[in-house]
Amino acid sequence: MKVLVINCGSSSLKYQLIDMNTEESIAQGLVERIGIEGSVLTQKVEGREKYIIKQPMKDHKVAIQLVLGALVDKENGVISSMDEISAVGHRVVHGGEKFKSSVVINEEVKEYIRECFKLAPLHNPANMIGIEACEELMPNVPMVAVFDNAFHSTMPEKAYLYALPYELYTKHGIRKYGFHGTSHKYVSQKAAELLGKDIKDLKIITCHLGNGSSVTAVKGGVSIDTSMGFTPLEGLAMGTRSGNIDPAIIPFLMKEEGLTIEEVDNLLNKKSGVLGISGISSDFRDIEDAAFKEGVHRAQLALDIFEYKVKATIGAYAAIMGGVDAIVFTAGVGENGPESREGILKGLEFLGVEIDTEKNKVRGKVREISKEGSKVKAFVIPTNEELVIARDTVELISK
Amino acid sequence: MKVLVINCGSSSLKYQLIDMNTEESIAQGLVERIGIEGSVLTQKVEGREKYIIKQPMKDHKVAIQLVLGALVDKENGVISSMDEISAVGHRVVHGGEKFKSSVVINEEVKEYIRECFKLAPLHNPANMIGIEACEELMPNVPMVAVFDNAFHSTMPEKAYLYALPYELYTKHGIRKYGFHGTSHKYVSQKAAELLGKDIKDLKIITCHLGNGSSVTAVKGGVSIDTSMGFTPLEGLAMGTRSGNIDPAIIPFLMKEEGLTIEEVDNLLNKKSGVLGISGISSDFRDIEDAAFKEGVHRAQLALDIFEYKVKATIGAYAAIMGGVDAIVFTAGVGENGPESREGILKGLEFLGVEIDTEKNKVRGKVREISKEGSKVKAFVIPTNEELVIARDTVELISK
Repeated sequence: MKVLVINCGSSSLKYQLIDMNTEESIAQGLVERIGIEGSVLTQKVEGREKYIIKQPMKDHKVAIQLVLGALVDKENGVISSMDEISAVGHRVVHGGEKFKSSVVINEEVKEYIRECFKLAPLHNPANMIGIEACEELMPNVPMVAVFDNAFHSTMPEKAYLYALPYELYTKHGIRKYGFHGTSHKYVSQKAAELLGKDIKDLKIITCHLGNGSSVTAVKGGVSIDTSMGFTPLEGLAMGTRSGNIDPAIIPFLMKEEGLTIEEVDNLLNKKSGVLGISGISSDFRDIEDAAFKEGVHRAQLALDIFEYKVKATIGAYAAIMGGVDAIVFTAGVGENGPESREGILKGLEFLGVEIDTEKNKVRGKVREISKEGSKVKAFVIPTNEELVIARDTVELISK
Repeated sequence: MKVLVINCGSSSLKYQLIDMNTEESIAQGLVERIGIEGSVLTQKVEGREKYIIKQPMKDHKVAIQLVLGALVDKENGVISSMDEISAVGHRVVHGGEKFKSSVVINEEVKEYIRECFKLAPLHNPANMIGIEACEELMPNVPMVAVFDNAFHSTMPEKAYLYALPYELYTKHGIRKYGFHGTSHKYVSQKAAELLGKDIKDLKIITCHLGNGSSVTAVKGGVSIDTSMGFTPLEGLAMGTRSGNIDPAIIPFLMKEEGLTIEEVDNLLNKKSGVLGISGISSDFRDIEDAAFKEGVHRAQLALDIFEYKVKATIGAYAAIMGGVDAIVFTAGVGENGPESREGILKGLEFLGVEIDTEKNKVRGKVREISKEGSKVKAFVIPTNEELVIARDTVELISK
């Protein structure tokens, strides 16, 4: 059985076709600049040259048509007909409080995803466009929505409620939702496998560190707290996002700098994080170059602050779980940043974790990076959100 | 030598006269409703009835005149003449970045305190009124300013900088300052004494839990991080303050509820915290009554959230210090809330701390509350900010 996984952004679209018998990716691709001049589709298939299509794409429907065309293309494709696609799994960023797991898409589900537009104004509308375009082009193929926050629906009230007037929760749904759920779920399950233990008996801290970053406390296989909140702005210092700040800074800045609501939003989401501190880039590779090769103080500072907040969050989550058995690093920086991992884990020996600096010299591969005998194990585990989406899709359509 | 300690609020004034030979408080008092109908001064002296003066007080100068009068009053006073007051120590909330310790007040110091009005618009102006009134009434008595954030001036850059555009720090001084400094300093030093160790060798987490709450990581005797930030709004869930929230909630609320900057500020500072969650009160005694006696869910939830955030912060600070030797509880709830202390420490056994539930049944007294043999010690230590202010004052005027 082959499942197509779609992750639709406002002007981009990532896709992957997965053979669920082997759980191997058959083809993966990215469409960029949808609805903008310079639209381009890039498809990668193991062992082949990249297949690139440059042509105007006025909307997501055109883009998905081209994706399907690329998949069945005689020369560059991987399947002989669209009938080989048994189901489509859609990543949907925000499922609000209603869906605690993935769900087969029907009218009611779509209506609810629309209700959540307010909670994820940048993401959910784009996800919905992708769903509707697929429905039109593949009317008889079952579709599943996999929500980025569903894995965190197990958080207890004391973790997800803010210390705000309670009415803001009941009236507006203001609470912590958490994101990167499929990633935290995947790597925590993989860690349990690697440990050879039942996940029900484990306390795992998963660090999804990329341009957007979050840390999750996974106790007994379920998320009990996570660092992103009502939106993906909360928590750690990220590529361009501030993470936690004193909330009083916002009214202060609006007054002192005369900023509008939109300008504040833009400042915190697009101009802050390691970009804001370093003044150089939101890309950790650029910042590491500036820090390590040129000794730029603010670049080093940006890395220090990033690591410091992850370290503190690991400590906080060990405290709320009453200990920790494994710490997992995943996503761009988590998989490919040995310096960051070392900076984060150094000093946590009191928790029982000892990093092996030699083993830690790894990028993008599953590996234990703690010393032999380390009571708490540390792992690098490349994430695979698409596979989680495809697995959920198969499970639901098989019912 | 006798030192008068003054803590001036916008419409109130707390004072204490301390005999620095014995470090005992001779008299302490509170003036309320200054400049408002119903002004009242209440002075307490050990072993005597309360001395109460009710009369109009149009400003702080009148209030301080009455304080001095009460101290020298033939019947109710404690000194025979104002000449016995060798110095005055003023609590000043915000010393910005300039003063890293207490300082003798002169024109330059006052100018700088005025510059910090922007950083503490509610507190510094009131503190300044107190300083100027005392200068007028006691022109020849040396005065010292003791800043609430000075103890935290040792925080490293990675702890005090936010992941915001760096220019906001250089232009507006937007950084973490921290507060309750005199309290964290006092109880951490006292804990080192109780442990019979040099504070330079210790890692101490001090929990100042009251209507306003903050936790500090004291490593080698200096603050390396603290939970309050640019203002006293950041960090824990407090009586009426939200502490940390997703910053994106503010623009969301301003849009959805049409709130002004002032209304948001008021919401986060005055209507949130345990008051906001419980809907009952900002006073922990009221909330505990509702939770324990009447089983009110939201009251229990408010307590759970409060404890949860303190517990997580203890874990975070253990992580950044690379361990912890002692955890100290102080201030209203910290000194008088055995249930809260137990809720906070339970589950932290993996850190090496074991609470002794019998010993923990203590209110307002110095006591070790960890089990014999607990690797990490836990203490209740009543704070004494006035004594720290008086000590700093004596030290500076003796130079």
